[in-house]
Amino acid sequence: MTAVNDSVSTGIGTELTHEEIFAAHEGGKLTASVSAPLDTARDLSIAYTPGVAQVSRAIASDAALADRYTWTQRLVAVVSDGSAVLGLGDIGPKASLPVMEGKSALFKTFADLDSIPLVLDTNDVDEIVETLVRLRPSFGAVNLEDISAPRCFELERRVKEALDCPVMHDDQHGTAVVVLAALRNAAKVAGRELGSLRVVISGAGAAGVACAEILHTAGVGEIVVLDSRGVIHADRTDLTPIKQELASYTNSRGITGGPDEAMKGADVFIGVSVGQVPEERVASMADGAIVFALSNPDPEIHPEVAHRYASVVATGRSDFPNQINNVLAFPGIFKGALDAGARAITDGMKVAAAEAIAAVAADDLSADYIVPSPLDPRVAPEVSAAVAKAARAEGVATA
Amino acid sequence: MTAVNDSVSTGIGTELTHEEIFAAHEGGKLTASVSAPLDTARDLSIAYTPGVAQVSRAIASDAALADRYTWTQRLVAVVSDGSAVLGLGDIGPKASLPVMEGKSALFKTFADLDSIPLVLDTNDVDEIVETLVRLRPSFGAVNLEDISAPRCFELERRVKEALDCPVMHDDQHGTAVVVLAALRNAAKVAGRELGSLRVVISGAGAAGVACAEILHTAGVGEIVVLDSRGVIHADRTDLTPIKQELASYTNSRGITGGPDEAMKGADVFIGVSVGQVPEERVASMADGAIVFALSNPDPEIHPEVAHRYASVVATGRSDFPNQINNVLAFPGIFKGALDAGARAITDGMKVAAAEAIAAVAADDLSADYIVPSPLDPRVAPEVSAAVAKAARAEGVATA
Repeated sequence: MTAVNDSVSTGIGTELTHEEIFAAHEGGKLTASVSAPLDTARDLSIAYTPGVAQVSRAIASDAALADRYTWTQRLVAVVSDGSAVLGLGDIGPKASLPVMEGKSALFKTFADLDSIPLVLDTNDVDEIVETLVRLRPSFGAVNLEDISAPRCFELERRVKEALDCPVMHDDQHGTAVVVLAALRNAAKVAGRELGSLRVVISGAGAAGVACAEILHTAGVGEIVVLDSRGVIHADRTDLTPIKQELASYTNSRGITGGPDEAMKGADVFIGVSVGQVPEERVASMADGAIVFALSNPDPEIHPEVAHRYASVVATGRSDFPNQINNVLAFPGIFKGALDAGARAITDGMKVAAAEAIAAVAADDLSADYIVPSPLDPRVAPEVSAAVAKAARAEGVATA
Repeated sequence: MTAVNDSVSTGIGTELTHEEIFAAHEGGKLTASVSAPLDTARDLSIAYTPGVAQVSRAIASDAALADRYTWTQRLVAVVSDGSAVLGLGDIGPKASLPVMEGKSALFKTFADLDSIPLVLDTNDVDEIVETLVRLRPSFGAVNLEDISAPRCFELERRVKEALDCPVMHDDQHGTAVVVLAALRNAAKVAGRELGSLRVVISGAGAAGVACAEILHTAGVGEIVVLDSRGVIHADRTDLTPIKQELASYTNSRGITGGPDEAMKGADVFIGVSVGQVPEERVASMADGAIVFALSNPDPEIHPEVAHRYASVVATGRSDFPNQINNVLAFPGIFKGALDAGARAITDGMKVAAAEAIAAVAADDLSADYIVPSPLDPRVAPEVSAAVAKAARAEGVATA
């Protein structure tokens, strides 16, 4: 363990000591509570035997009643194998638990959803899917978390196919939803339409792929994605299936080469990798460019430098304006999906979530305010309502 | 669903209406709460990024720290496949959930332990074991619940072998522990030693087998077990492996026949099946007999009838004296095991739990008070302390 007198920069003007962090994690961050007290023999005989038998018998006759008489319809399983935890990489399920408990705490705080971290001692996609299928009656939705790419793409697809409930890999879609929200508002500030933008996404991992997908769905005109070997295009012979799919709907002008070629004249840069971007490259972008430098804790380019050329700049950090934080998205998305009894989370529900996030910031829009604060209490209810509405419109709702 | 104006006899002098029961189950009985509020940006940066990364990194370096910095060391997984739920039988995992939530509520109420119901959509022993092995980093202990016999015996053995944590099938051992506690005190009231008692156990399911085991471990002189085909003895050719094992250490006098032969002259009757026992059979027992008629809601013989012949009578019901309720055992057993960082729940820990339960009632002992009330707040802490002490004495503790 690192010495306790080390400290962590929070980006909120003060530093956290190790002592403070570890003290706050003592005993973990979650607790399971009882909805109503069991103080008397009568309470006991309602919540347990003999009373509970009536409820079990009713569900045995009509399985749909489980949504009403158990906690599952507000319960999200936060599922990870610990293979891509924050910036720490493959640290395993046990070490990922504090992050998953934190995720559960955010679900509770922002959307009043219950959740349980389920961390799995296997990296095998078949085994993870199989485990969740067996556990299906125990929860109402699955938030996949911190699972490494490219495995995460197949895993999410397989879990969605196998389970009749909301499933979302947050590292992909939580980030993508907030990026879309931020880009909508940034485009407004810059006086541009989404359809006219040339967008470069640096990084083809979980977040990069999902950003490309949602921007494409939302009608962004041209998207070019960069991986560590350069621009993704259909002629490359080294592409994984997911990158082949990317190549099929991005890079319509057929750019080849590296970041220099991609960024020259581009309107938008979205950094979701760990690489640094030199100042000259930002200078080569179109006038009034939009730069989302989302790598954490070190943005691909310092926001002050980016501002010399860009009209709008966002980062993943809370000590600069325009923090792209997926806590703006996932609590409301799952709340809305569960409220609607949705059997899936569709593209339309994600786009609706992005629009709801953007709308919360719309009245006070400026170059330094394109997304609400992560602590803004208006966000989750707005997102939740929009997502539930979209679920109903798309025919996946049951409630 | 049964009509709402039906009602359930509680055995506590009043009746529960269906309306009241279902209202109390609306939305389920559990909720996941946050140990400390996340109100400020600083709270967020401690509980989630960037602060949480320090804790995850520490656990990655030293896995033992997960016990301290996550909720697992006070978290019991309540695991069922819904195959033997209360008296309802194989109603499946979804319908079993209200019972498992109730179990979790009891853990919280009596031992301040967190727990999560994990109900599994499979009855296959291999698959259940495999699932729990994969989930191992997610919890600190496993309470197996409402799993049908004889599968439950193999399942418990296999899960205990596979997991380095406290594991107990409560339908077996919770009941057995309280029966031993009650029998110790009943013997005292009757002026008898455990070693001198001839005990008949009616039922060779989960509870019957475990009762035989613990009474044998505790030194009861002679035990005869009845299944639906009569007395279990080594010459029978129809015995399952678990009954063959029973035959190897019970029935030392080699009784054959049925309940009549078994009960004639016996000192103790323990009913853990659904069969009824006619008055004549109780009359045939030894003078000053002890009768535990534990079938619920209908005891094998009405306590008033049993009292014509027996010196001490116990049931599973709360409207008669001496309620044998396993809530006296499991909260304290798991609390003590987790407090001691025990890697297993041993026979010695179970016997220690029984002695602690018996001791709480010892000062006020009478024929109508051989076990404490299920609501007695002294019980769980006493059981917990005794179990932790036994874990340390038996060398399975790590804390």
